[in-house]
Amino acid sequence: MARFLKKRDKTAGLVPGSAVFIGNQKVDDIKIRIIDYDKSQLHEDELKKISDGTEFKEKNTVTWINIDGLHDAGLMKEIGETFDLHPLLIEDIMNTDQRPKLQESDNNLFLVLKMLRHDESNQTIISEQLSLVIGKTFLLTFQEQPGDVFEPVRERIRKQKGRIRATSIDYLSYALVDTVVDNYIYIIERFGEKIEDMEEVVLGDPEPEIMEQLSNYRKEMNFLRKSIRPAKEAITQLAKLDNDIINKKTIPFLKDLEDLMTQASEAIDTYREMLSDQMNLYNSALSNKMNDVMKILTIFAAIFIPLTFIAGIYGTNFEYLPELHFKYSYFIFWGVMIVVAVALLIFFKRKKWI
Amino acid sequence: MARFLKKRDKTAGLVPGSAVFIGNQKVDDIKIRIIDYDKSQLHEDELKKISDGTEFKEKNTVTWINIDGLHDAGLMKEIGETFDLHPLLIEDIMNTDQRPKLQESDNNLFLVLKMLRHDESNQTIISEQLSLVIGKTFLLTFQEQPGDVFEPVRERIRKQKGRIRATSIDYLSYALVDTVVDNYIYIIERFGEKIEDMEEVVLGDPEPEIMEQLSNYRKEMNFLRKSIRPAKEAITQLAKLDNDIINKKTIPFLKDLEDLMTQASEAIDTYREMLSDQMNLYNSALSNKMNDVMKILTIFAAIFIPLTFIAGIYGTNFEYLPELHFKYSYFIFWGVMIVVAVALLIFFKRKKWI
Amino acid sequence: MARFLKKRDKTAGLVPGSAVFIGNQKVDDIKIRIIDYDKSQLHEDELKKISDGTEFKEKNTVTWINIDGLHDAGLMKEIGETFDLHPLLIEDIMNTDQRPKLQESDNNLFLVLKMLRHDESNQTIISEQLSLVIGKTFLLTFQEQPGDVFEPVRERIRKQKGRIRATSIDYLSYALVDTVVDNYIYIIERFGEKIEDMEEVVLGDPEPEIMEQLSNYRKEMNFLRKSIRPAKEAITQLAKLDNDIINKKTIPFLKDLEDLMTQASEAIDTYREMLSDQMNLYNSALSNKMNDVMKILTIFAAIFIPLTFIAGIYGTNFEYLPELHFKYSYFIFWGVMIVVAVALLIFFKRKKWI
Amino acid sequence: MARFLKKRDKTAGLVPGSAVFIGNQKVDDIKIRIIDYDKSQLHEDELKKISDGTEFKEKNTVTWINIDGLHDAGLMKEIGETFDLHPLLIEDIMNTDQRPKLQESDNNLFLVLKMLRHDESNQTIISEQLSLVIGKTFLLTFQEQPGDVFEPVRERIRKQKGRIRATSIDYLSYALVDTVVDNYIYIIERFGEKIEDMEEVVLGDPEPEIMEQLSNYRKEMNFLRKSIRPAKEAITQLAKLDNDIINKKTIPFLKDLEDLMTQASEAIDTYREMLSDQMNLYNSALSNKMNDVMKILTIFAAIFIPLTFIAGIYGTNFEYLPELHFKYSYFIFWGVMIVVAVALLIFFKRKKWI
Amino acid sequence: MARFLKKRDKTAGLVPGSAVFIGNQKVDDIKIRIIDYDKSQLHEDELKKISDGTEFKEKNTVTWINIDGLHDAGLMKEIGETFDLHPLLIEDIMNTDQRPKLQESDNNLFLVLKMLRHDESNQTIISEQLSLVIGKTFLLTFQEQPGDVFEPVRERIRKQKGRIRATSIDYLSYALVDTVVDNYIYIIERFGEKIEDMEEVVLGDPEPEIMEQLSNYRKEMNFLRKSIRPAKEAITQLAKLDNDIINKKTIPFLKDLEDLMTQASEAIDTYREMLSDQMNLYNSALSNKMNDVMKILTIFAAIFIPLTFIAGIYGTNFEYLPELHFKYSYFIFWGVMIVVAVALLIFFKRKKWI
Repeated sequence: MARFLKKRDKTAGLVPGSAVFIGNQKVDDIKIRIIDYDKSQLHEDELKKISDGTEFKEKNTVTWINIDGLHDAGLMKEIGETFDLHPLLIEDIMNTDQRPKLQESDNNLFLVLKMLRHDESNQTIISEQLSLVIGKTFLLTFQEQPGDVFEPVRERIRKQKGRIRATSIDYLSYALVDTVVDNYIYIIERFGEKIEDMEEVVLGDPEPEIMEQLSNYRKEMNFLRKSIRPAKEAITQLAKLDNDIINKKTIPFLKDLEDLMTQASEAIDTYREMLSDQMNLYNSALSNKMNDVMKILTIFAAIFIPLTFIAGIYGTNFEYLPELHFKYSYFIFWGVMIVVAVALLIFFKRKKWI
Repeated sequence: MARFLKKRDKTAGLVPGSAVFIGNQKVDDIKIRIIDYDKSQLHEDELKKISDGTEFKEKNTVTWINIDGLHDAGLMKEIGETFDLHPLLIEDIMNTDQRPKLQESDNNLFLVLKMLRHDESNQTIISEQLSLVIGKTFLLTFQEQPGDVFEPVRERIRKQKGRIRATSIDYLSYALVDTVVDNYIYIIERFGEKIEDMEEVVLGDPEPEIMEQLSNYRKEMNFLRKSIRPAKEAITQLAKLDNDIINKKTIPFLKDLEDLMTQASEAIDTYREMLSDQMNLYNSALSNKMNDVMKILTIFAAIFIPLTFIAGIYGTNFEYLPELHFKYSYFIFWGVMIVVAVALLIFFKRKKWI
Repeated sequence: MARFLKKRDKTAGLVPGSAVFIGNQKVDDIKIRIIDYDKSQLHEDELKKISDGTEFKEKNTVTWINIDGLHDAGLMKEIGETFDLHPLLIEDIMNTDQRPKLQESDNNLFLVLKMLRHDESNQTIISEQLSLVIGKTFLLTFQEQPGDVFEPVRERIRKQKGRIRATSIDYLSYALVDTVVDNYIYIIERFGEKIEDMEEVVLGDPEPEIMEQLSNYRKEMNFLRKSIRPAKEAITQLAKLDNDIINKKTIPFLKDLEDLMTQASEAIDTYREMLSDQMNLYNSALSNKMNDVMKILTIFAAIFIPLTFIAGIYGTNFEYLPELHFKYSYFIFWGVMIVVAVALLIFFKRKKWI
Repeated sequence: MARFLKKRDKTAGLVPGSAVFIGNQKVDDIKIRIIDYDKSQLHEDELKKISDGTEFKEKNTVTWINIDGLHDAGLMKEIGETFDLHPLLIEDIMNTDQRPKLQESDNNLFLVLKMLRHDESNQTIISEQLSLVIGKTFLLTFQEQPGDVFEPVRERIRKQKGRIRATSIDYLSYALVDTVVDNYIYIIERFGEKIEDMEEVVLGDPEPEIMEQLSNYRKEMNFLRKSIRPAKEAITQLAKLDNDIINKKTIPFLKDLEDLMTQASEAIDTYREMLSDQMNLYNSALSNKMNDVMKILTIFAAIFIPLTFIAGIYGTNFEYLPELHFKYSYFIFWGVMIVVAVALLIFFKRKKWI
Repeated sequence: MARFLKKRDKTAGLVPGSAVFIGNQKVDDIKIRIIDYDKSQLHEDELKKISDGTEFKEKNTVTWINIDGLHDAGLMKEIGETFDLHPLLIEDIMNTDQRPKLQESDNNLFLVLKMLRHDESNQTIISEQLSLVIGKTFLLTFQEQPGDVFEPVRERIRKQKGRIRATSIDYLSYALVDTVVDNYIYIIERFGEKIEDMEEVVLGDPEPEIMEQLSNYRKEMNFLRKSIRPAKEAITQLAKLDNDIINKKTIPFLKDLEDLMTQASEAIDTYREMLSDQMNLYNSALSNKMNDVMKILTIFAAIFIPLTFIAGIYGTNFEYLPELHFKYSYFIFWGVMIVVAVALLIFFKRKKWI
């Protein structure tokens, strides 16, 4: 299956804005969790139906509703209606091959990102789509499957750690995105370490399989770049936004995220270049090896073929072949051969082949 | 025939704005179809002459006239006069090698796109030009041949599905372009899948023919890019346009299209890079194979050439060759040869050639 | 001689604005032709001296003076004075290695372009400089040699074809530039066809000479790009110009030219990439061939060298060589050799070398 | 350990703005030094606690506090509170993998740079983070370890050399950054010299190890670029800043720094290109060597294999082999062989192989 | 010594704005020449001390003071004080590794350029720094050594040729820069000619040394680019400047220079690409040669090794070897060998190896 662009057969020809799930259903039961808080109080619950969340929406508290599982079109439509979301926005949430982006509309900000996971077993990166709808008094987050990457943020809310309970929707959104970005850095760093270590392998005596490994790393770097570059753009846009939802005090935090994303993006480019340098090194090493093989062949051939020829001459059965009858012929014959061999060895020595 | 730039011999030296058909005539009879609707009513018909469409033009309904077949200059001129189109616009419609573009004039928008088709049999992409003239109360679409890619849109109009019957010319235009773009994504995805699968072939034991295949994919990617990159620009321009014809409510839909085009464009670039990586992999594999061939040659030559030489010595006919007359010479001779062969085998084993 | 940057020895150290001819004199006699027209009348003549053209300059008709041959500094100065041109402008006209450009001054527009010609015999492109001075009531065109590429435009003027007689200087200028650009497209298309055809040659069984051919095409593409890229900029600039000389009605025509130039420019880039891909294909084909050569060598050597060695053993003259005296030795010897040969053939078969 | 992106495990999931040290602790005892001066007076001291510096902060003198060692979170927080710094700023100071940047806030400028050191022993570059907090009346500098790169600046302050004592915080900051940039230039120049010298080695008779060396230089150039490119951006930004802290008179000095950074950045690019050219040269030299090896092999084989064959013919034991019995056969045999050998030598001579 | 970035050891840690000479002292005695003129009068002299020039500075005439030799810090400081120059400007003049640039200050324009010279003997380019300080009534030019590249300008001033005597400081500055730029074009053209000629050499039968030559040209092109690209920026900036010193009438001349610089810059890029194409061509030619060598080896080996084997069989000494005793064995033996040889020749012919 194409990893870099997913099939959309299901939507072709459909009404735009149709709520159709595109992707692999990764969870059976959809779970809706709500956290509602302000400085003084905290309410945490699991919702049965989305309508149970309506009351919180209106309140002036920070309301964070997290939905795990995207395949239920009916529920999605209901959410859309409850929170007054554009049908296209719902379509984007359900299409898990969205390009990371920020979209500003009249009453909310819509941010799509990828949560990445590093599958150690076959050295690939697995991507899960995270959609955030940032309203004035509520935050909706949509994930493909239940993930506890946000658990530390929940803990901070519960324990009133940091400034989070004293701040608004925008800071909560920042805190979540920050967790996602931290994970990007972590993954790049893990790959980076491996890629930097490859250098030594390439400069040692590499197996042909190394090419496959380098090529695999390169593909994963491409995959990372595909998610991270547009995410960087989206975050930069977010930090520059002139919108009521984003508090002026949150801007420095967003700028910090932007810096991290720039660094991540540059690191990916550096590693891509490094891989391509390593491929060149490997190819150059291959040529060197070939040279060595050819030298050995040539040394053997160039020394023994003439000697065999000399032996061949005295293996002929000519009736009148005077040398055959001299007493010391055989020893002279050996002498000549040794001289020839030594001369050739000196010749190759001078050429620095041996 | 040049696929990336078509001959224009016919127009060289002609008056600009001349209505001359450039391309392959793909249809014999030109067909003009009209759909005229608003929220409450729908009229669908096939027109005999273009003047039959005049009455609809004036009405405040959505009037969509589709023309299949572009080769009749007379008809084209008539259409131009009926709908008040600039002669250059008619020239552009009839020249099927237009670069996709958006042109804004006083009373209409002119959008040229390519409809792409994937010819499975020889893995090439076939391109057909689609021109849209978006007026205030009418939409003209020009195709080189009758294509039912728009049939789902017609169905939606007929069945009042989605919002289409309640909206205006701009939304209808969007719906048609959306269908075309969906097809782009579909084609890229099909090629992408094949290209991603090539990786495994390249890393296996590839035939020389693979180079031809990779090169063909690369050419098709170039062809796709040629159509899609300018189309992306045109759609971006359309989404930013400040023009009466484009309703503010249609903008989010156009922005969505823009996102899709960006994704398509990035996917093409990724696949192009991937192909070029695969070519490098293949070339590196070739070098590896050559190394293997050379090693086998060298092992055979280095072992048997010295042995043959030794045999050659005792094949000489010197009268005084003492070793020949010892009883165990022959066996010692075998012993020496075995020692030489084993020594060389160990040497090559140490070099990891065997 | 350097084709990509011409010698300017003659002007080094000279007063800037000096009227010095740089280039190859391509014509002996300078010819000055005048066409003067408006909707109702037409006057066409050949001028003896430039001062004969003064009267037309003042009139409100469209006056087009074409000069073939640039080497006469005296005449050039006279033209400069008659039509009130900046000395630097005259210097630019006479220096035939100008970079295509548009220059706006108080009373005229100065446009330098290259007219390209494809020399079939040695597959090179020949460039001739065309300078246009577009004044309010007159158009001066300067060519290095008499060329009838503008003949169709003259015909149109004479026969009142198209809108040309009813329009002004700017439209005439457009019509001339359009002719030049049509020729660019034609040339690129010719080369493009050849380059696209090369693909098949490269994938077939290419001769080493193909590299020379590909490299030649690449050089010509560079040469084209050198003329066409700055011309594109100049035309884009022209289409955006806010200047009395350019009528608002001519803008769509200029925008059309701009589109053509963008297409031309993109086609050149595509063909350059295609050529570079073909060079890679060829190099890869070379490696494949080398592999084939090596395989054949290795097969022959690996089979016959051991066999020769076996034969060599029984060619020795040891007195006590028991096998020589058995009755069936010779046949067993053949048997062994056939077994060895077949074993090796199977080995190579398994390696897919044969 | 990944050199191009450091692990941040410690901060993952932490509250943003947490004061956590990321990096290698390079010093045991943190040292705080203060220099406080204006035109007429100078006070220099080592502080025990940061609160001892408070009095200087308020005064209208230039106060420069330098902190060596970043691992003490408590101290850092205290500094933050004393000088009214944003928690994120403290986090940035303690995270030694910051990307060089300039950050403007209400009451200070925050500049992060890398101080680079060239480790001669293994030809790598070592990076230490320098953070400057430029307030209105104070300058804070944070280093990972005590470094005397700033000693010349201190000397200038002490000895009233140059304009430094008569100027303000911004000039002092400039003077420090200037010292850092001078060091960049010095390091690039040292590497540059070595890289330019490599050319000769590559064109001589290079060992395979050269590839490793070139690749190492390339990696260090990448490392330099990683620090210097964003530093260039930060300094450019600083020179353009419209902020009270930066005096108009200091701008020319900052612009000078900008020029230096541009030059440094361009030099790095040039050296990177040069290295990549040298790698190509080396690979081409490898091919040339291979060609030489093959030629020698071919000459030996092509001459002696036919000769051995001829000898082989007359080594056969056919009963009726007439040539064997002629008296001069042996000498004719030699003649034929010499003719064959000479013919082949002439053949190879013509091919310019010998 | 590093050519692309010069050592600055002397200034490290020094007060910025210190007058320290960086570079190779190319002249022993510093020479100060003054030319002072307006429309009606001309004064030309050599100054003993810089203070002798003060009187001219105040006058409303054009005063051009040229200084050859930059190593005297005392003199430089004096000049700086006399003409009211910023200390950093003096530092820039004395540092001969400045990046070409334009700097605008309150009372003058400061332009740094490189004068290039082509050293024919070892095909390198030698660079000398030229600094122009363009004041309202005076022009200072600083050169490293006396160079008569400006002699033609002086001649024009003396002989009242062209417009130079009637114009102001800005036109004089233009005239000098024009001379420098003409020299750039000349040098690029000389190299260009050689590079274009290399094509033929590469396509012929190139020696391995060609790689060295191509690489040298590439290095010189890089060196040219290093001087010319920033110079182009500086001249573009100059042409766009809104400053009293630059007269509106001089702008067209500056724009002309800008065109020349663009052309120069594009030519350098084209030649760099051409060199890289030629390197590829050469590498491809190498592979072709290798193929040829291998084919010859394979043909010889594949034909004679089997034949030698056949001969070997009949050289065995088996007692019962029936074929040896047939009368025509020897001739049949020859027949078989000829058949084998011809069959193999046909085989290789079919493969187009011969």
